[in-house]
Amino acid sequence: MPTSFPTGLATIHGAAEFLSERVAALTDNGFKIDVYAGGELVPPLGVLESAQTGTVECGFTAGFYYIGKMPALVFDTGVPFGMTPRMHTAWMRTGGGLELMRELYSEFNVVQFPAGATGAQMGGWFRKPIDTVEDLKGLRIRAAGYLGNIYADLGAVPQQIPGSDLYSAMERGTLDAVEFVGPYDDEKLGFNKVAKYYYSPGVLELNASIAFLANADAYADLPDSYKAALQSACAETNSNMLATYDTLNVPALRRLVASGIELRSWSDEIMDAMKASSEKLLAAQAAEDPLFKRVHTEWKSYLDEQLLWSSVNDGAAQSYLMNNRG
Amino acid sequence: MPTSFPTGLATIHGAAEFLSERVAALTDNGFKIDVYAGGELVPPLGVLESAQTGTVECGFTAGFYYIGKMPALVFDTGVPFGMTPRMHTAWMRTGGGLELMRELYSEFNVVQFPAGATGAQMGGWFRKPIDTVEDLKGLRIRAAGYLGNIYADLGAVPQQIPGSDLYSAMERGTLDAVEFVGPYDDEKLGFNKVAKYYYSPGVLELNASIAFLANADAYADLPDSYKAALQSACAETNSNMLATYDTLNVPALRRLVASGIELRSWSDEIMDAMKASSEKLLAAQAAEDPLFKRVHTEWKSYLDEQLLWSSVNDGAAQSYLMNNRG
Repeated sequence: MPTSFPTGLATIHGAAEFLSERVAALTDNGFKIDVYAGGELVPPLGVLESAQTGTVECGFTAGFYYIGKMPALVFDTGVPFGMTPRMHTAWMRTGGGLELMRELYSEFNVVQFPAGATGAQMGGWFRKPIDTVEDLKGLRIRAAGYLGNIYADLGAVPQQIPGSDLYSAMERGTLDAVEFVGPYDDEKLGFNKVAKYYYSPGVLELNASIAFLANADAYADLPDSYKAALQSACAETNSNMLATYDTLNVPALRRLVASGIELRSWSDEIMDAMKASSEKLLAAQAAEDPLFKRVHTEWKSYLDEQLLWSSVNDGAAQSYLMNNRG
Repeated sequence: MPTSFPTGLATIHGAAEFLSERVAALTDNGFKIDVYAGGELVPPLGVLESAQTGTVECGFTAGFYYIGKMPALVFDTGVPFGMTPRMHTAWMRTGGGLELMRELYSEFNVVQFPAGATGAQMGGWFRKPIDTVEDLKGLRIRAAGYLGNIYADLGAVPQQIPGSDLYSAMERGTLDAVEFVGPYDDEKLGFNKVAKYYYSPGVLELNASIAFLANADAYADLPDSYKAALQSACAETNSNMLATYDTLNVPALRRLVASGIELRSWSDEIMDAMKASSEKLLAAQAAEDPLFKRVHTEWKSYLDEQLLWSSVNDGAAQSYLMNNRG
């Protein structure tokens, strides 16, 4: 099972190892899944194609890496101003999302299981304060995939740079800002030494859902109990990865703040502009892509219902607690 | 496997059925768990004792039903102004919570697995508006277990009444208010016909975590792959139950509102008073119960860290979305 991730992303790559261990435990070691980090066996962004052609039996990746092949796959991972991990899981398990995603992936001859969640990623590291949309103009920012489109729409110049080269690009000054993941992963790359301002909240990425993809023919050949093992192990991995991030991110954030960086919240102007840009881009894609439109409509309907419920109950209760900490 | 729940609580009881089905699927039907609704095999609140003595091999219940035996078990289920489902899962999986809970349950010769989450429950149904703490004085409210202590502290008169008798008690006027679960379950009992005001947010119960309990000797005798099946199936059940509630609660809430009830938010005065009362009661219990104190200290420390993280990132992003819906 190749992943799209370097071992340095210990929580995401570690989730692939966790999944493999759980499947082995569930099957008395009968079903062994060998994990290969991004690039070891196939290129990091070649995981879908490798599983599709049967070069590998399965892979551990994220749908939004393949929006060049099918834009609607972005909904499998996460969309700016989109679902929290809880909403995404609810959509997948009981809201029709899984059936829809499996329909999309069936075009690639693979079967998908949600198998990981990052939670909200941070807004990123900036060398200068970003107070207004004007401050984004011309900004060279590393913003992967779909997020880059929004930054471009707002006048920034998104860069696609591998994670391993980000620190030196920031240090040399060929890059002005970097959106990577969150405190635990960001700290390891040392961004606090090359950028002072760390922005939140991660409205552009409230979650990234990780996908386990099995070649459909290989999957069909599995005994029923092995199929069941994949389903339950992926569900457990999904919970465990988010839990791992939640536990590790807090002390990492404390260390980063103690190192002298400045934690800042996006202004309403910035968030409003990002939201407007995101909606414009989604509408534009939907206008030219009927499949994207269908998925977007279902996704948006579920999101709106969950935001309503959250604003009445769970989210409102959580807001009270956040505003009255201690 | 007896549960503490009636079949009428379709989502909670259904989670026990789901768990049984997943375990069967994972073991080629080798490991069969027969589910019995509350009272069918043993009394609803006798599940822990039955699993402890080995009358049954396992049970599906909630720790806070047994705070008479050990007050610290309340932390296994949920505490007012406590953890969201996500925080609770993170505490259990990577924050030391599971080890602590298993230590508590080992006193009862059972092994615990978290196996369900309700999400936040609603504040409840009231026949008169509740604007101030004064409005709670003398109020006869059905509030189960730990929540009843807070209402009593605020001057209300909590009542312990089985779910099946609640509607008639409200109709007859022997009860003024009822805290039950949330829209999906509440609608089925018809509370909208006997009370006009439906309060949120559920700050007294941001989550109720359901516990699968296995007799420790029976568990020790299981083959390793069956133990693994219990772990992964419980994890999947945990996610699935919350997802089920999230999907079902929204249309139920819409129907309730359409039926003419008035959805109201607790005033800050009420929530502040509830929070102060909750903290007072927790401190009082901790002062006389070293085990409770130890668990409370660890629990509170983890909660505070997660609230900090949430207020920086995930919760702040979600708040923006809730405040800018549509």
